[in-house]
Amino acid sequence: MAITEYIPGKRLKGPFPENERQIKLVVAYDGTGFFGYQKQAHHETIQEHLENALSKICNEPIVVYGISRTDAGVHAKGQIVSFFTTGSIPAENVARATIAFLPPTIVVRSAEEVPREWRARHTMVGKEYVYRLHVSPVENPITMRYHWHIKKSLSFDAMREGSTHLLGTHDFTTFKGANGNPTDPIRTIHSIDIRIEGESVTIHFIGDGFLYNMVRNLTGLLVDIGLGKRKASDVPKYIEACDRKVIGKTAPAKGLCLERVIFEEER
Amino acid sequence: MAITEYIPGKRLKGPFPENERQIKLVVAYDGTGFFGYQKQAHHETIQEHLENALSKICNEPIVVYGISRTDAGVHAKGQIVSFFTTGSIPAENVARATIAFLPPTIVVRSAEEVPREWRARHTMVGKEYVYRLHVSPVENPITMRYHWHIKKSLSFDAMREGSTHLLGTHDFTTFKGANGNPTDPIRTIHSIDIRIEGESVTIHFIGDGFLYNMVRNLTGLLVDIGLGKRKASDVPKYIEACDRKVIGKTAPAKGLCLERVIFEEER
Repeated sequence: MAITEYIPGKRLKGPFPENERQIKLVVAYDGTGFFGYQKQAHHETIQEHLENALSKICNEPIVVYGISRTDAGVHAKGQIVSFFTTGSIPAENVARATIAFLPPTIVVRSAEEVPREWRARHTMVGKEYVYRLHVSPVENPITMRYHWHIKKSLSFDAMREGSTHLLGTHDFTTFKGANGNPTDPIRTIHSIDIRIEGESVTIHFIGDGFLYNMVRNLTGLLVDIGLGKRKASDVPKYIEACDRKVIGKTAPAKGLCLERVIFEEER
Repeated sequence: MAITEYIPGKRLKGPFPENERQIKLVVAYDGTGFFGYQKQAHHETIQEHLENALSKICNEPIVVYGISRTDAGVHAKGQIVSFFTTGSIPAENVARATIAFLPPTIVVRSAEEVPREWRARHTMVGKEYVYRLHVSPVENPITMRYHWHIKKSLSFDAMREGSTHLLGTHDFTTFKGANGNPTDPIRTIHSIDIRIEGESVTIHFIGDGFLYNMVRNLTGLLVDIGLGKRKASDVPKYIEACDRKVIGKTAPAKGLCLERVIFEEER
């Protein structure tokens, strides 16, 4: 089977060899300079790098299945990826073996064998994304690759008040990017936690899943509220509008990181 | 006066124009990819970028005087730089004006006019350097540009014990890099503070000044002690040896940041 037969998000057609095993990886990357997770022609992507590295290690063409199609410039600490192989490499050797074949900005943090019928999307119960802000009149070159620089001061009280209106189950159409695939827009946000450490502010979003660009649009709104451009009490109105145009700009990709995918047993 | 007349570390020869003013800058940079602070032929340096940017803003050739010649790959949050100009740009406009002429990885954080006779090296009472470690079996792509990755666990108790022997006034010849200029090797370390936050460990060094490569060599020794390769109680013996060969390897440049220069009034 050749890599070109790959259909995004779909398991290749069987019958499958008896000796095929499934291996699950936890992958971290610095998204700067990549065209996102998902493979596409003429662009450097995380998926392509992983498939090339694993194909060399396993000595057969490998297709990887990632749970989050993180956008261009978005980072990950805990992307979940799985692949099938008839090769004999022990799962515990995979992470170390990939080092030689991946750029230093992509790291396989761990690998474990899972049952052939295991599917991340059926086992997953949620995701945590972290958005990083650098709040200071001047940019900091050492944090700029991973933070959105906010020059004016923010009212964290207002942001926290605004975030409480976002919790729970809603139709999040207002927060969905224009280029996303059609999908059920109902999502549940379990928690939004705003942590302040000097000039560094992180917003931790935990939910059952997020629409295309949703975390970046939620962050854009919370920052507008923090800046006093919008009112926390208007958040329910924005949600109800089901219209992307009622809110402001999308926060930049570079501040966003897929922190972890939460599975049943880790809840 | 042309920039080529510049003598490193020396004020250009007078007589100086009556209307000449001195401006002091606080500069931050991501040292990745630069050949250090100090100007040198055929290499991209922080000093060269600053001189080019300021020469454009002031519309005359500008020479800058930096207090720390940070090495290739070393970062800065609070490098202190000053320059003389006969131009009329108000000091409070300098930081903003440089943005268009500097790469995004070099930022002038603030600028203020100081008396013509002011010299950073005479006013300075100390420096703070921060060394960042990432302690984890696997590398983290999001922190790797600014941290030294330590795969094995460290005994922070042993490192703290070792650091106490380094405090005070000593001949630090053992910790001086081979390529440094001849200089008085006596320095005073006021404090070494090891802070742990999850996998991120920072070592804060405050002293009256540091020899070439000294902070990186001190860090290399403290890490060896943390790993159990060397004993904390042997530190006095290493200092007394006055021989670089008695200690292990120099910590990599990328983990080091010149945090701030401490002036009399800030003590």
